[in-house]
Amino acid sequence: MNLPTNSSISVTLSQQDLRTLTSAAASEKFEQDSLSINGKPQSLDTPRSKACLQDLRKLRLQLESENPDLPKIANYKLNIVSENNFPTAAGLASSAAGFAALVSAIAKLYQLPQDMSELSKIARKGSGSACRSLYGGFVAWEMGEQQDGEDSRAVEIAPIDHWPTMKAAILVVSDDKKDTPSTTGMQTTVATSDLFQHRIKYTVPQRFDEMKNAILAKDFPTFAKLTMQDSNSFHAVCLDSYPPIFYLNDTSKKIIKLIHQLNEEAGEIIAAYTFDAGPNAVIYYDESNEAQVLGLIYKFFNKVDGWSKVDTSKLNQSWNIAGDDEMYKGVSRIILTGIGPGPQDSEQSLVNDQGVAK
Amino acid sequence: MNLPTNSSISVTLSQQDLRTLTSAAASEKFEQDSLSINGKPQSLDTPRSKACLQDLRKLRLQLESENPDLPKIANYKLNIVSENNFPTAAGLASSAAGFAALVSAIAKLYQLPQDMSELSKIARKGSGSACRSLYGGFVAWEMGEQQDGEDSRAVEIAPIDHWPTMKAAILVVSDDKKDTPSTTGMQTTVATSDLFQHRIKYTVPQRFDEMKNAILAKDFPTFAKLTMQDSNSFHAVCLDSYPPIFYLNDTSKKIIKLIHQLNEEAGEIIAAYTFDAGPNAVIYYDESNEAQVLGLIYKFFNKVDGWSKVDTSKLNQSWNIAGDDEMYKGVSRIILTGIGPGPQDSEQSLVNDQGVAK
Repeated sequence: MNLPTNSSISVTLSQQDLRTLTSAAASEKFEQDSLSINGKPQSLDTPRSKACLQDLRKLRLQLESENPDLPKIANYKLNIVSENNFPTAAGLASSAAGFAALVSAIAKLYQLPQDMSELSKIARKGSGSACRSLYGGFVAWEMGEQQDGEDSRAVEIAPIDHWPTMKAAILVVSDDKKDTPSTTGMQTTVATSDLFQHRIKYTVPQRFDEMKNAILAKDFPTFAKLTMQDSNSFHAVCLDSYPPIFYLNDTSKKIIKLIHQLNEEAGEIIAAYTFDAGPNAVIYYDESNEAQVLGLIYKFFNKVDGWSKVDTSKLNQSWNIAGDDEMYKGVSRIILTGIGPGPQDSEQSLVNDQGVAK
Repeated sequence: MNLPTNSSISVTLSQQDLRTLTSAAASEKFEQDSLSINGKPQSLDTPRSKACLQDLRKLRLQLESENPDLPKIANYKLNIVSENNFPTAAGLASSAAGFAALVSAIAKLYQLPQDMSELSKIARKGSGSACRSLYGGFVAWEMGEQQDGEDSRAVEIAPIDHWPTMKAAILVVSDDKKDTPSTTGMQTTVATSDLFQHRIKYTVPQRFDEMKNAILAKDFPTFAKLTMQDSNSFHAVCLDSYPPIFYLNDTSKKIIKLIHQLNEEAGEIIAAYTFDAGPNAVIYYDESNEAQVLGLIYKFFNKVDGWSKVDTSKLNQSWNIAGDDEMYKGVSRIILTGIGPGPQDSEQSLVNDQGVAK
């Protein structure tokens, strides 16, 4: 079922900058289910992938049995072709985006009538956090209370247009492919971290409610403080695992210090960092503070790729904040993005009319 | 009173390798209390230092009033000269050693009859962990329950000769003087970390009892696992603080991974890491496994200073464990040491017969 240990909240980011494009085709000519990501064949023979495909086929079969006019494609093998425009397995939620896109693409191929909430449950079986990626804007994954997991589901807290000025700057921290995949890491943490029990029983439930309220009130300082605290709490329980799990590296830590200095110097909280299961920093800020926040980031990271989207002459160049002048060397690029929608239909297709990768 | 938030256990290390030598003199000619550490003048005008000196003078005054034959030196100004043979303020417990030596030296000058337990309480006011350093071997600091702190005290769990084969290899990790002094850091953690509350209420009390038993039973694997878990738990609550506190750097993390690989490969736990408020690793092992444990450390750190004490040809050179071949660059030296005694009288003096630094 891939049920979570706690409820959680995510912000869906813009597909202009971070996107998985997925095409799905079914054909009696295909000999087996197949998947490629960024041109490389990937196994679908995993319990998680199989669970997704099985659920989707079952829904299609039901549809076909209810409507005999429909083509009988449920038992055809599938060919799924997927491309990310961002680094895979580097802690940028590529598996969440991937399974959300895979389920959406197959649901569209199968013309399934199920709503996002149902599809979200299927995506969850592929990758837990994928369940949130079926929605745009601010999304909660409510852990639920039922034994059968039926009430563990993603729900929209607020749509994009509630707070469209929410921006994110992602500093992609150079690192090898991460040591510990997030799912394996989380299992070690659940099994061995003593502090984790406190986190899920007390810390997260309280912050979850506070965060929902902060989003609804568009209260950036509260949103930001909770974001930073929860990021630190998550990485703390990773470190408390046995053996310990480290996702943050020295560059990540320098970025954390920089953001605290920025907020200190600004006299209010105008930026928040958060780190998923990897060293990359996601810096949130409100568009009204863009010149301030990006100004400081530009001061330290102007040598990395990714600045072409902004007019850097308009950024605040006058921050008197000291830091390691070499820290840009630990960052490969910056991705400037903002809040975005859930899965979108695309005119573009990655397969030809035979269903084969172009 | 400098009372702790939780009980704790330390191993006192050998003075052959890590020693603070302190001389104290009192003279009517001195115009003010003064202290030098490694030749540099240091302020005694801090609440902590003043509390120590005040307590010691009070005991001397009492002695002088009881015995009129004693020289009246309690109100003379003091000159204290101290030297460490290890890096100061680098997370190697220099303030614990320093206050333990300072209190011992003045107590000797004052000919105080108080026992270690009483002196330990005075040292605690200077630096909390100094209270344990008045004892050798394995030492507990029992937090106590009384409001007035009278029952918060250091006690010996076991003397050196209970487990004399306990060895320690300290990898001194190159780093600037640490960002966050340990006392300030701990105050931030107490005030802001949510997970810290769980650590002191549940995690530490349970592990404290388990650790005492492991020491009494000379059960190295249990001693080691608890040591590693508690180190990780401590650094986890540092990271959970707001703003977060980081003592471990990328080199520290590589050493942690190496020790887990070593234990994995050995098929049993033969080494433990622990990190105080700094990036330096203290690796514990039993002398019976010296060839194994130092063998692996030598494989990665043979280029650093400090190996002259061991016959490296006798170390196990055959570990088939991969790691970053450059990690030695993050380490300035290795200190090979073992368990040691509490404060010792020394023939050596750092002051001349006028009480002035030589």
